[in-house]
Amino acid sequence: MEHLTTLTVRYAETDRMGFAHHSNHIVWWELARTELLRAIGVPYSEMESTGVGCPVLEIHCRYRQPAYYEDQLVVRTHIAEMTPLRIRFAYVIVKAASGALVASGESLHAFTDIASGRPLRLDRRHPELWQRLQSGGERYLAASEG
Amino acid sequence: MEHLTTLTVRYAETDRMGFAHHSNHIVWWELARTELLRAIGVPYSEMESTGVGCPVLEIHCRYRQPAYYEDQLVVRTHIAEMTPLRIRFAYVIVKAASGALVASGESLHAFTDIASGRPLRLDRRHPELWQRLQSGGERYLAASEG
Amino acid sequence: MEHLTTLTVRYAETDRMGFAHHSNHIVWWELARTELLRAIGVPYSEMESTGVGCPVLEIHCRYRQPAYYEDQLVVRTHIAEMTPLRIRFAYVIVKAASGALVASGESLHAFTDIASGRPLRLDRRHPELWQRLQSGGERYLAASEG
Amino acid sequence: MEHLTTLTVRYAETDRMGFAHHSNHIVWWELARTELLRAIGVPYSEMESTGVGCPVLEIHCRYRQPAYYEDQLVVRTHIAEMTPLRIRFAYVIVKAASGALVASGESLHAFTDIASGRPLRLDRRHPELWQRLQSGGERYLAASEG
Repeated sequence: MEHLTTLTVRYAETDRMGFAHHSNHIVWWELARTELLRAIGVPYSEMESTGVGCPVLEIHCRYRQPAYYEDQLVVRTHIAEMTPLRIRFAYVIVKAASGALVASGESLHAFTDIASGRPLRLDRRHPELWQRLQSGGERYLAASEG
Repeated sequence: MEHLTTLTVRYAETDRMGFAHHSNHIVWWELARTELLRAIGVPYSEMESTGVGCPVLEIHCRYRQPAYYEDQLVVRTHIAEMTPLRIRFAYVIVKAASGALVASGESLHAFTDIASGRPLRLDRRHPELWQRLQSGGERYLAASEG
Repeated sequence: MEHLTTLTVRYAETDRMGFAHHSNHIVWWELARTELLRAIGVPYSEMESTGVGCPVLEIHCRYRQPAYYEDQLVVRTHIAEMTPLRIRFAYVIVKAASGALVASGESLHAFTDIASGRPLRLDRRHPELWQRLQSGGERYLAASEG
Repeated sequence: MEHLTTLTVRYAETDRMGFAHHSNHIVWWELARTELLRAIGVPYSEMESTGVGCPVLEIHCRYRQPAYYEDQLVVRTHIAEMTPLRIRFAYVIVKAASGALVASGESLHAFTDIASGRPLRLDRRHPELWQRLQSGGERYLAASEG
């Protein structure tokens, strides 16, 4: 299943070509992750308050067509991979009105100890959080990224 | 005396009118403050590492003409007011090539205790920092904002 | 009457103090204006497509308390002044949960000819648009800015 | 050969972890491309003023360690691929003080007709520009992305 986040392109997000600047996709993905994690009962702010970070290791985005000011966009997000060490999200952004593909991509994250900045195993460090993430995240987990 | 910070308008800072979006001025001012404070020997990052914050209480900006992608701008900054409780900066942004006025404005800041978020008197909390700020800042301090 | 816009603080909008960076308020105001103008039947994108711009001449913001990641905020917006030459919006940002005041301020805008960049009288240049703006905007127009 | 762009992390670019937010890398790359293109005599603003756009088709970034407020960073950029249809840049971002790797990645761009948004062959559409890009860009062109 995919999680859906709707957003409207802000004026400040446009550039001199009239397009939503491509760097905003990275921010929109984060928005979508925030909502997905909240939807499954593991708000990202709660994760950080327990000392567990989830920084981005890698992003990969393919742009297909521009989005414009006031365009309504839908970010369709699923979890492509989830282990006690890392989590990978996949995103497809489409125009709400037409369903036309705007861009797609993935982000890979590691679980880390905020204090030290070092990687950790979530199932050992915080079994209850891992349990909640795993059971809540299951319905957004895809067998393949296809 | 004024402190001068030079910057070039980034593509991502432009909007669909082709202008540098007006919200960027607030970020450019911060850049100018950072450099001014470093120039007088009180880096802002050092101030924060001693537990003293300097959040913005108020901003006021008047825009005169647009800046464009790749425009070189100069932020001319001075200290309009400096007490152990608060500091006010004044900014004039001009085009480097022509000297034409782009915008001007002010920001007012309080010294605060980062842990509690409450205001503090810098001369009592951290006399050495206040001393350094005062003696270093003097040359950028204007009698009037004129 | 006030127009209400709800938004959630994005991770990318936070700064190293954990606060929503103060420059975001300027972007949130723009979001609120966009929605208010759409609500009264004069979408800003439509205005620009007729060759009429509405650039910011002046902003003034007073910050009262920080907003944090995942905070739900409400921007309460009204029109403080509206003439064929210019329009002024006033904003109050509060936390949705508590109603606590985060910041308040105003932005002043001129109607301009996009091609030349020069000011124009909206009632002469585009009477129908002015008519629509005036009749639609009336319910958000405050007699005084109080 | 690599083109070097130096920048300092802005306060507004930090996030609640104290890191420069990962979306800024995409903006910094653009900054580096702008400078590289200007250095070889083909300013990006000039390209756009002839009706030729160079939008991003794809980005890929691998993050290695955080950058912090006031960190001086160097973006080392080279051209990984250049044809009349498209151009690919590769970036390595390091800390100026230590040389430590912060992140690396690539961006792929197509040459397009701004009016129609459609791809074009730069050597046919604008032979002189292509000639200048090719001869100027040669010294930043790597045989392999290694």
